[in-house]
Amino acid sequence: MIIKLRQTVDSKKAEELALVFKAFHIKENECSTLVTASSLKEIPIQYQEFIDEFWVLDNDMQLSSKKYRKEKRTVNFGNIQIGGNTNNTILIGGPCSVESEEQIRESSQLLMKLGLSALRGGCYKPRTSPYSFQGLGLEGLKLLAKMREEFGLTVITEARDATHIDEIIEYTDVIQIGAKAMYDQGILRACAKIKKPVLIKRGFGTTLQEFVQAAEFVLSGGNDQVILCERGLRTFETATRFTLDLCGVAWLQEHCNLPVILDPSHAMGYAYGVPNLARACVAMGIDGLLIEAHPNPKVAKSDASQQLNHDEFEELYRSLHAVAYSVGYKIV
Amino acid sequence: MIIKLRQTVDSKKAEELALVFKAFHIKENECSTLVTASSLKEIPIQYQEFIDEFWVLDNDMQLSSKKYRKEKRTVNFGNIQIGGNTNNTILIGGPCSVESEEQIRESSQLLMKLGLSALRGGCYKPRTSPYSFQGLGLEGLKLLAKMREEFGLTVITEARDATHIDEIIEYTDVIQIGAKAMYDQGILRACAKIKKPVLIKRGFGTTLQEFVQAAEFVLSGGNDQVILCERGLRTFETATRFTLDLCGVAWLQEHCNLPVILDPSHAMGYAYGVPNLARACVAMGIDGLLIEAHPNPKVAKSDASQQLNHDEFEELYRSLHAVAYSVGYKIV
Amino acid sequence: MIIKLRQTVDSKKAEELALVFKAFHIKENECSTLVTASSLKEIPIQYQEFIDEFWVLDNDMQLSSKKYRKEKRTVNFGNIQIGGNTNNTILIGGPCSVESEEQIRESSQLLMKLGLSALRGGCYKPRTSPYSFQGLGLEGLKLLAKMREEFGLTVITEARDATHIDEIIEYTDVIQIGAKAMYDQGILRACAKIKKPVLIKRGFGTTLQEFVQAAEFVLSGGNDQVILCERGLRTFETATRFTLDLCGVAWLQEHCNLPVILDPSHAMGYAYGVPNLARACVAMGIDGLLIEAHPNPKVAKSDASQQLNHDEFEELYRSLHAVAYSVGYKIV
Amino acid sequence: MIIKLRQTVDSKKAEELALVFKAFHIKENECSTLVTASSLKEIPIQYQEFIDEFWVLDNDMQLSSKKYRKEKRTVNFGNIQIGGNTNNTILIGGPCSVESEEQIRESSQLLMKLGLSALRGGCYKPRTSPYSFQGLGLEGLKLLAKMREEFGLTVITEARDATHIDEIIEYTDVIQIGAKAMYDQGILRACAKIKKPVLIKRGFGTTLQEFVQAAEFVLSGGNDQVILCERGLRTFETATRFTLDLCGVAWLQEHCNLPVILDPSHAMGYAYGVPNLARACVAMGIDGLLIEAHPNPKVAKSDASQQLNHDEFEELYRSLHAVAYSVGYKIV
Repeated sequence: MIIKLRQTVDSKKAEELALVFKAFHIKENECSTLVTASSLKEIPIQYQEFIDEFWVLDNDMQLSSKKYRKEKRTVNFGNIQIGGNTNNTILIGGPCSVESEEQIRESSQLLMKLGLSALRGGCYKPRTSPYSFQGLGLEGLKLLAKMREEFGLTVITEARDATHIDEIIEYTDVIQIGAKAMYDQGILRACAKIKKPVLIKRGFGTTLQEFVQAAEFVLSGGNDQVILCERGLRTFETATRFTLDLCGVAWLQEHCNLPVILDPSHAMGYAYGVPNLARACVAMGIDGLLIEAHPNPKVAKSDASQQLNHDEFEELYRSLHAVAYSVGYKIV
Repeated sequence: MIIKLRQTVDSKKAEELALVFKAFHIKENECSTLVTASSLKEIPIQYQEFIDEFWVLDNDMQLSSKKYRKEKRTVNFGNIQIGGNTNNTILIGGPCSVESEEQIRESSQLLMKLGLSALRGGCYKPRTSPYSFQGLGLEGLKLLAKMREEFGLTVITEARDATHIDEIIEYTDVIQIGAKAMYDQGILRACAKIKKPVLIKRGFGTTLQEFVQAAEFVLSGGNDQVILCERGLRTFETATRFTLDLCGVAWLQEHCNLPVILDPSHAMGYAYGVPNLARACVAMGIDGLLIEAHPNPKVAKSDASQQLNHDEFEELYRSLHAVAYSVGYKIV
Repeated sequence: MIIKLRQTVDSKKAEELALVFKAFHIKENECSTLVTASSLKEIPIQYQEFIDEFWVLDNDMQLSSKKYRKEKRTVNFGNIQIGGNTNNTILIGGPCSVESEEQIRESSQLLMKLGLSALRGGCYKPRTSPYSFQGLGLEGLKLLAKMREEFGLTVITEARDATHIDEIIEYTDVIQIGAKAMYDQGILRACAKIKKPVLIKRGFGTTLQEFVQAAEFVLSGGNDQVILCERGLRTFETATRFTLDLCGVAWLQEHCNLPVILDPSHAMGYAYGVPNLARACVAMGIDGLLIEAHPNPKVAKSDASQQLNHDEFEELYRSLHAVAYSVGYKIV
Repeated sequence: MIIKLRQTVDSKKAEELALVFKAFHIKENECSTLVTASSLKEIPIQYQEFIDEFWVLDNDMQLSSKKYRKEKRTVNFGNIQIGGNTNNTILIGGPCSVESEEQIRESSQLLMKLGLSALRGGCYKPRTSPYSFQGLGLEGLKLLAKMREEFGLTVITEARDATHIDEIIEYTDVIQIGAKAMYDQGILRACAKIKKPVLIKRGFGTTLQEFVQAAEFVLSGGNDQVILCERGLRTFETATRFTLDLCGVAWLQEHCNLPVILDPSHAMGYAYGVPNLARACVAMGIDGLLIEAHPNPKVAKSDASQQLNHDEFEELYRSLHAVAYSVGYKIV
């Protein structure tokens, strides 16, 4: 249940009530809001005087539910707003991994040339083998920060596990929680305490219900800057790397109030399919698109097969405007 | 291996060679073509004099492979061509099941009003329970034929199993092989012997490789009018009915020379998600779209939740032009 | 709903009532039983006088449900009974495909040597490619029949599609409906009209609910000799051919009154894993086991990798007694 | 590649060579072993003098591969050895979550009564919703430690994320890495530096290859006390909670040198199926079994439906001896 307390209820009383209801206590527009387990369906009569409004919910999709807040939430991606009524589709580009200053500068220059503002690049790579390239770590974070200063870009990178979440929070503008880390409460709870935007990728074996519940960990801590990112499910089909779940996206658009960004690069796993898929994603009317691009994909240290080269990225970018326009959106 | 025989080789000799190679023998542009198992990788020297050209293939995706024929095949959907360089996206509409003359006439009138030409409607429903509505059978086929005569529509309906395939072939313009029937060799082999177009739906548990191999059953019998239709995989996600596999579509577009039609209605299972998904499909640059619509979905005898009503169908139709146009296609 | 009519209700009246309720009408122990859609939850008062007992069921798992018949059904596998309280685990052996008289005789001799009675062997192979070995067809059926006459074996083989179901029914003792054919109503309805036992394999993309509903097609036609066979699901894991679903078997044992046979050979896809899996299956307390064995697996025309050779089969057989005994069953 | 250095190579030189090969350097039986990426296939001639033996491997399953070490590794579970040639199947029992001292003492007393030695119980629960019971945390760890002191039990509990891994390592005898945490390098790398046994559960969306690679993170850090635990895949089948992958277990037994423990409770999700599944697991010839049991499952704070009560646990335990014995194993 979500309980909006009366404006006359002070913080101390609100804390008391939170204890009574074993609830999370957050502030929304200066008002205290309590969030209890969804199994609570009724409010005892003696507490009704403190309560302005409340929402009984079917399950633990609560703060993220359109049953609670019908309008889509707005999130700031650097200077750009997405979600709400903006009809912006932000195009985030960059390599799978930050590999060197030269490489990440080339990526930055590509974005600047196209008038784009959001740079991605992995520093702590969640590789499944200890014998693969693991990313540059802190050195990579510093290179991303350098690009931000040099070019004014908004930087997004991924936390692999809770041991370096503080560094990620310090150095990056948007914190990405990867598909393999999205159940990680160490990361989620750390992100709940800050005000920076958080992009949560759906695990490849994760149900939509679990996906939005991961967002609830952040929202219930008081950080409402949460974006969901679909990047493909693991299915029996192995001719492509994963299976992008656009039915799931339609479900999120209907039921959930958080902005949605799509990552066709990881889903497909092969550069040849990324442009057509990216256009399909944009035609859904979505809030953003993550596309991997590398100055020279053949020598990339990770995910070589799925990264576009810079010419392909530019060509894709130019084709997306008309698609976005056809559904009332614009690429930013 | 695919072997194109010299024009000087007569039919009798071609049959002899087909026996030697345990090959299928088909005619393409008046020339004899033999198709053997793909495990054959070399042609013995004594037969080389009869052979014009040959293609060694990695696996049993042969006649449908772009390695054999780079350009997409053309298929006639009534008066409308799809595939090839037509850049047509045919919109096929109609109810899940033919329920009555009144109902199917309303569907036909909707298509006529919008200038569309292709009517779908199930007569033999592949229900998973014996206690559900099983379709009108032959009576339904006759109603579809009546609509064709009355309105000049192209009619497509589904064969459930081999016991009634002859009726389906007789009454319908395009034979649909449903997701649950696509391994059915009784149906596939019957469709291989005719010249009518065949639309094969991908099974919800079927790999892309198996999917194109189902088409090979028809192609290797000499019927080159084959269309593939993706309609969703069965995955762990149950908030939607199936998971539409657009990564798989990108794979087909890269590797396979057959036209591809998409069915977002069955994939989603809920009408609310169909319009956004349909726009995503069209933005892939595809050859057609199957959308279920019913004059009154609430009383539909099957798949009530996923059928659009006629206003929703019209609204969707009107929105698709701009999306198709943005990727160089047109809705027909 | 399942409705048991009073013994005083004659067949004519029973037929009338079947029409009223749009029900299947079958005979059980000389009594008329009607089976309607499970959505029927109440019986109108004017019909109550004809009714002895009735069962309201949650869904279309009706005749096969333990809510209707608590005790497991008994099925005759030749001279051997399985199911009920027999605690028999029948071991069915033989090659994937019947390839020649010599081969199938060797298989038969192996069974005779071990005192086993049930011979399997495919004649119409449901291959996914037209370019693979398709089975010997009718010639294979005749070879199986010859083995039955020569050795007194009970013979089981698979129907691929409805075009040859009459031949299968004529030549074989137990009709197998394969994983790819189990939605085939042409086959299911033909099997509903006969009295021979039918073994239905679960499709690799089939839910348990759909699986038991396939059995309902046969049961509701009046043939109660139905066995279910689990043979592996298609999942994201491709290191093995399929994923044997023993959780599903536990579900069937709890909810369904039909005997259950397991096929670890197809699930695993590799001979090395079959013995351990077969022992696991037997320890579940099951009604039978299908194991593929070939005199010389290396030259098998289909499924070469998963067939045991005859020494391995014999060794496995010898190890199964103790396992079966440990759970109160015996191998027959 | 795995490279065993000559005994004459001192530690300093070994470190040098590790740098040259970008290899992990571990000690096995007093000898230095280097593990490089599996993409290394040849050793340059100038280093051959330092090398005693080396193994070229197909992929990053290296230290855990039977191609490197044919015999199964031995792991100490308190006083009990599993793996190797012990033919021990350890039965680990206890509740899903530690809830109170009274509850966990009852669990301990049950184990003592049956002569069992291994107690499980979750303290940091990896719940997918922030609104569910999250476990007692450190307080729970202290209760487990108390049970160890009081009863001499070996205690196993789960790390949820890297923020509390030090506590887990301090308080528990065997560290469990849960299905949702098994990609967590913060946890894996911490476990690589210690000598306590580590049990890694397979993620429900994790391939076998990724599963053994998680073990490689621990092994390559020098901790060879690693156990794998299969606990069910997430598939399209939702009538059971997960799908226990015994085909995968057969694969592990063939290809991997680590002991394997199975968890049928989480796979099934319902107590009714656990006994039959547990017997199936034991008949595979496995190294251990995790079974959830609770003094009063109905009031359990997590996983209420799948926990056995103490009578059911005892009955199951008594039935397992004969099954284990039938395959040459014993329950300990």
